[in-house]
Amino acid sequence: MGEKNRYWRLTRRPIGDDYASALDLVEEETPDLVDGDVLIRNTYLSLDAGTRMWMTAREDSYSPPTPLGCPVIGMVLGEVIASRHPDFREGDLVRAYGQWSDFSVSRPDETYVERVSRRLDDVRQHLAVFGPNGWTGYLGVAEYGAAKAGDTFVVSAASGVTGALAGQVAARLGCRVIGITGSAEKAAWITEDWGFDAAVNRQDGDVAEQLRTLCPDGIDLYFDNVGGEILDAALENMALFGRVAICGLLTSYGEEGPIPGPYKFDQVLMKRLNFTGFFSPDFYHRGPDVNRRLRPWYEAGDLRMTFDVTDGLENTLTAYSRLLSGAKIGKSLVRLGNAND
Amino acid sequence: MGEKNRYWRLTRRPIGDDYASALDLVEEETPDLVDGDVLIRNTYLSLDAGTRMWMTAREDSYSPPTPLGCPVIGMVLGEVIASRHPDFREGDLVRAYGQWSDFSVSRPDETYVERVSRRLDDVRQHLAVFGPNGWTGYLGVAEYGAAKAGDTFVVSAASGVTGALAGQVAARLGCRVIGITGSAEKAAWITEDWGFDAAVNRQDGDVAEQLRTLCPDGIDLYFDNVGGEILDAALENMALFGRVAICGLLTSYGEEGPIPGPYKFDQVLMKRLNFTGFFSPDFYHRGPDVNRRLRPWYEAGDLRMTFDVTDGLENTLTAYSRLLSGAKIGKSLVRLGNAND
Repeated sequence: MGEKNRYWRLTRRPIGDDYASALDLVEEETPDLVDGDVLIRNTYLSLDAGTRMWMTAREDSYSPPTPLGCPVIGMVLGEVIASRHPDFREGDLVRAYGQWSDFSVSRPDETYVERVSRRLDDVRQHLAVFGPNGWTGYLGVAEYGAAKAGDTFVVSAASGVTGALAGQVAARLGCRVIGITGSAEKAAWITEDWGFDAAVNRQDGDVAEQLRTLCPDGIDLYFDNVGGEILDAALENMALFGRVAICGLLTSYGEEGPIPGPYKFDQVLMKRLNFTGFFSPDFYHRGPDVNRRLRPWYEAGDLRMTFDVTDGLENTLTAYSRLLSGAKIGKSLVRLGNAND
Repeated sequence: MGEKNRYWRLTRRPIGDDYASALDLVEEETPDLVDGDVLIRNTYLSLDAGTRMWMTAREDSYSPPTPLGCPVIGMVLGEVIASRHPDFREGDLVRAYGQWSDFSVSRPDETYVERVSRRLDDVRQHLAVFGPNGWTGYLGVAEYGAAKAGDTFVVSAASGVTGALAGQVAARLGCRVIGITGSAEKAAWITEDWGFDAAVNRQDGDVAEQLRTLCPDGIDLYFDNVGGEILDAALENMALFGRVAICGLLTSYGEEGPIPGPYKFDQVLMKRLNFTGFFSPDFYHRGPDVNRRLRPWYEAGDLRMTFDVTDGLENTLTAYSRLLSGAKIGKSLVRLGNAND
């Protein structure tokens, strides 16, 4: 292509939240394509907590860690600008596993690449309501969590994209919805803008105690994004035969060494709970079907999402720190220079 | 009645396995019955690990602990010798929640009392294959654990009654069955006498490593009776989408203070596992139905159980220590003076 491509290279395994020492923004020639490749000009990078895990050389992770010296992998929205794959052509808008870079090279036969419509009031929703976060929210609540009308539903990291969508799905299914957040601003946001019935603000003191007050009959379904002490606070308040949908264990992703499981783990037995872990790549193939269910709710205004947008590939690490420290509301995106909106 | 009744009274909360300092064998007049009571002459006491939990004043247990000063509650097999309940009469053989005592007073409208048949080749099986342990084994494997032919099945405390029956049920359902035990004698017993495909002996070194060798494709269903480091060893070896049926967490029952959950808890997410806790009183009403399924397997010789019998109510605490320390094989019973076999 002759054009320059910048990408974030994983140079070292990050310690804690020190990404600057671990990742370098490097420049290369845009790679040549081989048969089966597509070249995508990235418009938005989706920032996702799970990526943190792949930066670490942890045993027993979902999949092998990103090798050192390689670009960081992530979900992108962008336009195909060259294709050597028969199912994709120049001009297609795609959501794909690409790289934290200006241009992504992806191989649709080996990794996730899906054509998406430009006819959406806000194409960024392809990386939110109508993307993996929305599917995780829907399936985590409706299927893995088996939510039913009348349930008391609690979700952690409720001001993040997945937590917020899970809560809005649960509300549509007739649950009473309570979100756990980290600030008064977020607590106000989820109740006022996203229609949660109540919020727990971690800064207001003991989370278990707040949940006990808000859920006097116990939690029927807890949708967890964080693990750690918040999971314990929820376990302490589960209803008999409650379900725990484990979407993420954010608090452990940057940790080294053995991490104790929840201290209230024995509640699985005492309350006869069901825990289910799930992982969105397992159900990407169901995305179109789930989107058909979500579409009318979105059009009715019942699935709302805001975006925390950072401009410029060079600012990705700052945005990523904002995501993992929780210093934002909604879906975290990096907007690259070619975005039109 | 005029007859003396001896019973084990919980005088203090036991520390660790020191039952002698916590329980006293006391004598009283056999209590008078009121309407709705039955008086049972206990023939066998069923010793069960879960009773340990009720001796401790733990928060968040299944149910409130046994109050101090009261008799220890436990499952018994015995004969009704007086009845003020219309559904029971003198001479009935019953399995019931009674007391660790010579005579039990039980109220069938408030607690579990079920008439059972004398026409069984070994009536002790009413407290083993055809009692709560058998139901737990069957439902834990077939329903909560969703075992299917071809699964690799692992069970802890495999030489205990529930573990052994779970393993034999899994074998009948077509699983490859591996038991974790605490000695070479037990390992030989479960493979030679109970038909397990393989055994892990904890004394032979690292359990996780042994499981890795025996289950190269991972564990599809782990049936846990113990929790703690054995649960961690299993979690480290789960197959993708594996299930963990949590029947007991024996290692934590005598513990005080916060107990960390499994260090490999994050495998619930990494391997997308399902954990289910269950508790036999939830399904006592299904006992007759489960027994109809188990009967032909028993008659075919595919469900076998041996008994660890201690004679004399006065020796109950010694027997109970043997149970919790694992110094026995099969079902632990205390036989009282009136047993005929």
